Order: sequence, then C-alpha cells, then structure tokens
Amino acid sequence: MKSLLLVAHGSRRMASNDEVRELAYRLEAHTNGTYGRVDCAFLELAEPSIPDGLRQAIHAGARAVVVVPYFLSAGRHVVTDIPDVVDVVRAEYPDVNITLASYLGASAGIVELLAGLAEQD
Amino acid sequence: MKSLLLVAHGSRRMASNDEVRELAYRLEAHTNGTYGRVDCAFLELAEPSIPDGLRQAIHAGARAVVVVPYFLSAGRHVVTDIPDVVDVVRAEYPDVNITLASYLGASAGIVELLAGLAEQD
Repeated sequence: MKSLLLVAHGSRRMASNDEVRELAYRLEAHTNGTYGRVDCAFLELAEPSIPDGLRQAIHAGARAVVVVPYFLSAGRHVVTDIPDVVDVVRAEYPDVNITLASYLGASAGIVELLAGLAEQD
Repeated sequence: MKSLLLVAHGSRRMASNDEVRELAYRLEAHTNGTYGRVDCAFLELAEPSIPDGLRQAIHAGARAVVVVPYFLSAGRHVVTDIPDVVDVVRAEYPDVNITLASYLGASAGIVELLAGLAEQD
C-alpha cells in the first residue's frame, strides 16, 4: 500500500491546521484510490508530528510513503528540517520507501492559480 | 490601466524573496497583457512594502489594482494585516479601484497541484 503525507508548518491558530486537514481530505477524494491513505502532519505547533504521521501510515500497512511539503518557499524548513525528520523515520523502517516530493511553491501551476484568483476578483 | 500586485510575507532569506519576484515575472508572462503591470510587494522583511507597491503602480498610471495574497492560510496576515495596509492606500487614492483577491490557499486548484507533485515523485 502506498500512502501520501501532506506536511505543513503548523500554526497556533487551530483553524489554519484544520484547513490543512480539510485539504488532505480533498486530496484523498481527488486522487481517488491512488493512495491507500492520505494524511497530514505538521512540522511544529500541531499534531501529528511528521515522524508520527509517517509511523501511523507505516503501522497501517504502507510500504511506500510520498511526503508532499505544503510550503511556498525553499527555506530552511523545506531544505533541512523536513528532510532531517524524514531521515529519522527512514532509519527506523529501512524496508519502507519514503520519498520526498517537491514543495508546493515549486509547482509550475501556481502561476495559473494566481491568475485565476485575480480574474475572479 | 489595470495592474496586479502579488503580495507575499517576505523573508530574511533573500532567495525566498527572489522566488516571489521571479513568480511575478512568470505571472506577467502568463497573463500576457491582461494587466499593464504585474509587480510584487511584501508585508514585512523585504522591499517594496505593500503600500509602496500600490503607490508605484498608481504613479505609473494604474486606475485599478488587484492585490493577490501569496499565502496558504487565512491567518492574521490575510484576514487583518493585508486588508489594513490596503485600506491606507485606498484612502490616499479614492479614485483608484483597489481590490483584494482570495489568498492562494483558498484556490480549489491547489489539490491538483499537490497530486501532481506526489505523482512526479
């Protein structure tokens, strides 16, 4: 079973964390069975943590997990912090294929979404 | 002339601010003349500020400016801080139509971009 883990920064504002949880549900619906699970996890300030999110997916049977960073820029969190915590869980489960996708801000399609937002206005 | 102002948080990391500037260039190319100008501005930590970005567009002849927040969640910056600074410039230029678009994270298409990132992996 392959699973997808959407990882966000996490916020003191609960509604922002709930926006991410809601997005994970929508992503699960959109991918329509491609992934056995679509979950979210947070770098800080909210639960589950990224290691716990990975472990939960693995304990539920995932043999591959793709981690997708819900971040806009390639700052320290994307370049260092997320890879580091992913490596911790990779070392615990060497038989599970944990891969790290590009962060959202690197997606070429961002431009179209921004143009769409401006036009709707 | 209508102009578009992409507004981001701003970072101490210059490369993150440059990512936003690069995105504004790509947005200008993508919108292909719909807007007389496409610029970016920053809430804090980088230049120009949002008021200065608006004023520059207006001084260059914009009679309408659409402000697009490059933010993922509807936190304090999106709900309060950006509307407040936009209001300051609205009061200075009552004849200019300054509108505020939805923030990026509210865009339905985010789900497709995330699914695409996971698949590329």
